[in-house]
Amino acid sequence: MLNQYLINGRRESNLTPLDRGLAYGDGVFRTFPVHNGIPRSWPLQYRRLTEDCNALGIVCPPASLILSDIAALCDETEHVVIKVIVTRGEGVRGYAVPALAQPNRMVIKLAMPDYPEHYFSDGVKLHLCDLRLALQPRLAGIKHLNRLENVLARMEWVDGQVADGVLLDTDGRVVECTMSNLFLRHGDILMTPDLKRSGVAGVTRQRIIDMAPSLGYRIEVADFDLKALLASDEMVICNSLFGVWQVRQLEDKHWMAGVLAARLRGRLEQDDA
Amino acid sequence: MLNQYLINGRRESNLTPLDRGLAYGDGVFRTFPVHNGIPRSWPLQYRRLTEDCNALGIVCPPASLILSDIAALCDETEHVVIKVIVTRGEGVRGYAVPALAQPNRMVIKLAMPDYPEHYFSDGVKLHLCDLRLALQPRLAGIKHLNRLENVLARMEWVDGQVADGVLLDTDGRVVECTMSNLFLRHGDILMTPDLKRSGVAGVTRQRIIDMAPSLGYRIEVADFDLKALLASDEMVICNSLFGVWQVRQLEDKHWMAGVLAARLRGRLEQDDA
Repeated sequence: MLNQYLINGRRESNLTPLDRGLAYGDGVFRTFPVHNGIPRSWPLQYRRLTEDCNALGIVCPPASLILSDIAALCDETEHVVIKVIVTRGEGVRGYAVPALAQPNRMVIKLAMPDYPEHYFSDGVKLHLCDLRLALQPRLAGIKHLNRLENVLARMEWVDGQVADGVLLDTDGRVVECTMSNLFLRHGDILMTPDLKRSGVAGVTRQRIIDMAPSLGYRIEVADFDLKALLASDEMVICNSLFGVWQVRQLEDKHWMAGVLAARLRGRLEQDDA
Repeated sequence: MLNQYLINGRRESNLTPLDRGLAYGDGVFRTFPVHNGIPRSWPLQYRRLTEDCNALGIVCPPASLILSDIAALCDETEHVVIKVIVTRGEGVRGYAVPALAQPNRMVIKLAMPDYPEHYFSDGVKLHLCDLRLALQPRLAGIKHLNRLENVLARMEWVDGQVADGVLLDTDGRVVECTMSNLFLRHGDILMTPDLKRSGVAGVTRQRIIDMAPSLGYRIEVADFDLKALLASDEMVICNSLFGVWQVRQLEDKHWMAGVLAARLRGRLEQDDA
């Protein structure tokens, strides 16, 4: 049974329209797979949830409570997606943070998306988004609930063969895709955008940064423009649900089949096992 | 009885964590006073709600439904605040807008804030916010639910004598305050920031733009920096709840008592009567 959820550990609970997560997007979230009852990369996911809560001044719920919610929702044979949302809690009106705000914790069980098999074997096609991400260093990297830019960007295409859309910022730097982070390979260098002005710093991006040297790649977290992206030998996108896909096409640009995505995916799966 | 609300016209309803208003801030809102059962500036409020819904591709609920929700919540002797939230509705997961998304409409009754009387008679003191608003032309002007910038800016001060905080954008232009719009007077010119890159275009701002010529002011909707603000003869801030307050102090800058706020407030009240 899917689309079940717990609010503060309770099944019968509901949100009210006074929750600041709704009113202002005043909260953060994470999304990750749960296989046979075990949340993937849990220590990294929880660390990022805590860091993101801290950045907004929200008290992050203890890991034990979230894990117990996940255990209550998932049985040991399921392969599902868990989404955790933490909001600042209820407020009456106005942006000022109530002194006694009690964070609300929501744990939602969802079906694993049914990605086409050829995305994994042959790679994917991307759209280049017209929308440019705004520069907000105070929110950059955080997986917060203010995601209208992603929603508007995702509205730009309806082609079911397009897996995601590349987002540039208002200064023309490459940042990410609407639901994934990205890496370029130039020779033995793996480049991924610096996310200090915009974008979401995903857990799988961090895992790839951490593992790349052991696979023989030099990592560069840097600013670069579309021209550098189009000149890359290979391009891959990643997130916690699908792992890594090679990009074979971005608008008129085509890349040959490569081994980077399979190598990274293989290592991620090995580490998860 | 306050903090009552209707969701899609029903008292017993509640939100689920699958509402995209919570998940992504995918929705819009308005806040306005209701006196003796009559919503203030309703035609303008509803027009802006519709325009903001359209900008996000959300179908705005008919005015008749919202008015009937307000009538159900407010009796004819009350002086309260109504907040209307319209979200894109529920979605399972992912930024793509579900083809069958049914917007959710929330109408919430709140207490009128208890503003100090001297804010009206003597004027207010403002904070100059460190946070700079990001430039996002696709969302500028819209009263959408992605309001973390306002939340973070409002966290910058705790002094109860500070009524609001002035926000500049990342290029140094003056934009607005965290919960209000602003006007400067230079001689007989009334200037208010252009909101095509950031900010919320409030209804009271629009009413002042529309009425200013009949009060003998020339209106300029323009870009200007902090220096121009500090050089003004008078400064006022406005929103739909308090009307207009004169600004007497912004950090080290002080303004003499003036008549602009009282003139504008007088005309707004006359038009509301």
